[in-house]
Amino acid sequence: MPRYKLIIEYHGAPYVGWQRQSNGHSVQGALEKAVYEFCGETVTIGGAGRTDTGVHALGQVAHVDLQKDWPAEKVQLAINAKLKGSGEKVVVMGSQQMEEGWDSRFSAIRRHYRYRLINRRPRLTIERGLAWHCNQPLDVDAMNEAAQVLVGHHDFTTFRHSRCQAKSPLKTLEALTVRRGEDDLILVETSSRSFLHNQVRSMVGSLRLVGENRWSGDDLENALDARDRAACGPVAPPDGLYLTKVDY
Amino acid sequence: MPRYKLIIEYHGAPYVGWQRQSNGHSVQGALEKAVYEFCGETVTIGGAGRTDTGVHALGQVAHVDLQKDWPAEKVQLAINAKLKGSGEKVVVMGSQQMEEGWDSRFSAIRRHYRYRLINRRPRLTIERGLAWHCNQPLDVDAMNEAAQVLVGHHDFTTFRHSRCQAKSPLKTLEALTVRRGEDDLILVETSSRSFLHNQVRSMVGSLRLVGENRWSGDDLENALDARDRAACGPVAPPDGLYLTKVDY
Repeated sequence: MPRYKLIIEYHGAPYVGWQRQSNGHSVQGALEKAVYEFCGETVTIGGAGRTDTGVHALGQVAHVDLQKDWPAEKVQLAINAKLKGSGEKVVVMGSQQMEEGWDSRFSAIRRHYRYRLINRRPRLTIERGLAWHCNQPLDVDAMNEAAQVLVGHHDFTTFRHSRCQAKSPLKTLEALTVRRGEDDLILVETSSRSFLHNQVRSMVGSLRLVGENRWSGDDLENALDARDRAACGPVAPPDGLYLTKVDY
Repeated sequence: MPRYKLIIEYHGAPYVGWQRQSNGHSVQGALEKAVYEFCGETVTIGGAGRTDTGVHALGQVAHVDLQKDWPAEKVQLAINAKLKGSGEKVVVMGSQQMEEGWDSRFSAIRRHYRYRLINRRPRLTIERGLAWHCNQPLDVDAMNEAAQVLVGHHDFTTFRHSRCQAKSPLKTLEALTVRRGEDDLILVETSSRSFLHNQVRSMVGSLRLVGENRWSGDDLENALDARDRAACGPVAPPDGLYLTKVDY
């Protein structure tokens, strides 16, 4: 039974998130429906990152097992044709047949996320839903400097969702950088083997407080050390978050 | 009667274009309504560029005359508050009180447009409506090289809308460059004192034929020399076009 790796892009707004749920339309559900329409098989498509409601992906990775041995490109094109027919904001960017045992979630060695903030006073128009509008001036250098205390092996209890299902709050954050993009754009980029539920949005929400000079770098460190969800800054909205890449 | 310069950003999709029309909602109309709601004055807001249906702006420039001498920032904030209340995808990015006789359209010495193409096979999701999806491989260097025959003083009849109202088809194109952006993005950037109706989209549509190797640079030059609308390539859609800046 051949297993296919799929690289997937989606606009998060119309979806309850990656994972199939009873209360709405998911990216996983859209893909599973497209596979059914293409080849009549009822499948479960596993994903590398369980992105939340409204979170976008440029390079989500999933896998699917099919009965028939289709060329990988045929699988991609057929799923895309069905997704287009349903008007989904999901597209398969690449596909590849994998060896047995390969798993989009468990074989992943690193996830990369990007968070986009737009720092200006006027509301967003073109970028609405695609970035977090921060209307107070942000000190990007202070944010980037403070961010480095989060890099490394830590207990991230402060920066995890109260309903996070991971067994351990210990994670090794490999990178977390804050830099200016074009115009008023600020980019937060982060990499880790895996992230806790809401971890990126929680870290970005607290870094915004540093940028607004409401928190010092020490305040951020104290929040981490507190290992207490209540010590976290207001969580950043999903609009600005993108799962960009998964390494294997 | 003080005159205010307004720098305006908008998402083009919900609008019939900049100009007030009988058949739909315009950016100009949205702004005029916001001014009325703010100070009770019925005004006509002149703009530097008459962007078409669906065309976006990062730096459209307009002017408005008000009876009362408000601080410029107050005008900006009040209009923005009303635009927000109406759910418009239009925002005033800056405002300034100008000397008498200054006119957003006639005082302009240069308009800058950017056109965004995304060159890849899969459909667009996140960028849908914000770029032109070109699914055949494009040779960016060939496009940029060919584009240079359009720079300078020419009769642009080939590249103007059949209903273009300008008296003369002669324009001096100051710059036209094609370059790669991030990932699959291709950026066309162009500047001129003024443009004919549909000129940028007509030039980009023909440049795509060069990029696909269906036209040579000579074909583009022949199309220009033909001074015939029928010689133009298929016009690029509005989705990818942005009025970025107006110089005075």
